[in-house]
Amino acid sequence: MDMTQDELKGLKIKFNNEGLVPAIAQDHKTGEVLMLAYMNREALERTVKEKKAWYWSRSRNKFWMKGEQSGHIQDVKEVYYDCDIDAILLKVDQTGPACHTGNRSCFYRKIKI
Amino acid sequence: MDMTQDELKGLKIKFNNEGLVPAIAQDHKTGEVLMLAYMNREALERTVKEKKAWYWSRSRNKFWMKGEQSGHIQDVKEVYYDCDIDAILLKVDQTGPACHTGNRSCFYRKIKI
Repeated sequence: MDMTQDELKGLKIKFNNEGLVPAIAQDHKTGEVLMLAYMNREALERTVKEKKAWYWSRSRNKFWMKGEQSGHIQDVKEVYYDCDIDAILLKVDQTGPACHTGNRSCFYRKIKI
Repeated sequence: MDMTQDELKGLKIKFNNEGLVPAIAQDHKTGEVLMLAYMNREALERTVKEKKAWYWSRSRNKFWMKGEQSGHIQDVKEVYYDCDIDAILLKVDQTGPACHTGNRSCFYRKIKI
């Protein structure tokens, strides 16, 4: 089921009304879910080409390579897309914490159930 | 960091312009990422209360309890929210496949990198 970059260009990803798709970053060794961010088509293409995670920042309205400031980069090992082609899953080798708070994962707080 | 249901009501979740927040469902035992769907506040409150995963269907414009038709329910073990309070992570015990295609996970296709 693997595809080439040309096939990637043809992949009918369902971007939302902002032209974005949610991307989950997961530690490829431990399975820990590290963060959720957004990609547009170019961020996905950069990620696939460079094997570093690129996202689109909704607050700053620009591309960012995860870790470009902090050094906490994500080396991308595998890229999956879901059945509806409206979500992306990256399996990454995370350098340092994924979260800007210094926590390993952005999902460090729990709702009591 | 746990919270009561009253505190949940006060939690300032950043819903998007459709009133939704993305929710990742992850197998609580294996760590496999199973799917990504969307919740509004009521879906999250139902999930926390009933310990079954409830989502908001954007295509059908209604609540759905995962598995209400298929029987492939998600027993919710833990609920996390992220640093920006704009994404949810459910750790679940998944009955049967999570994906409507019959695959265990919705992320069964890979982009070659």
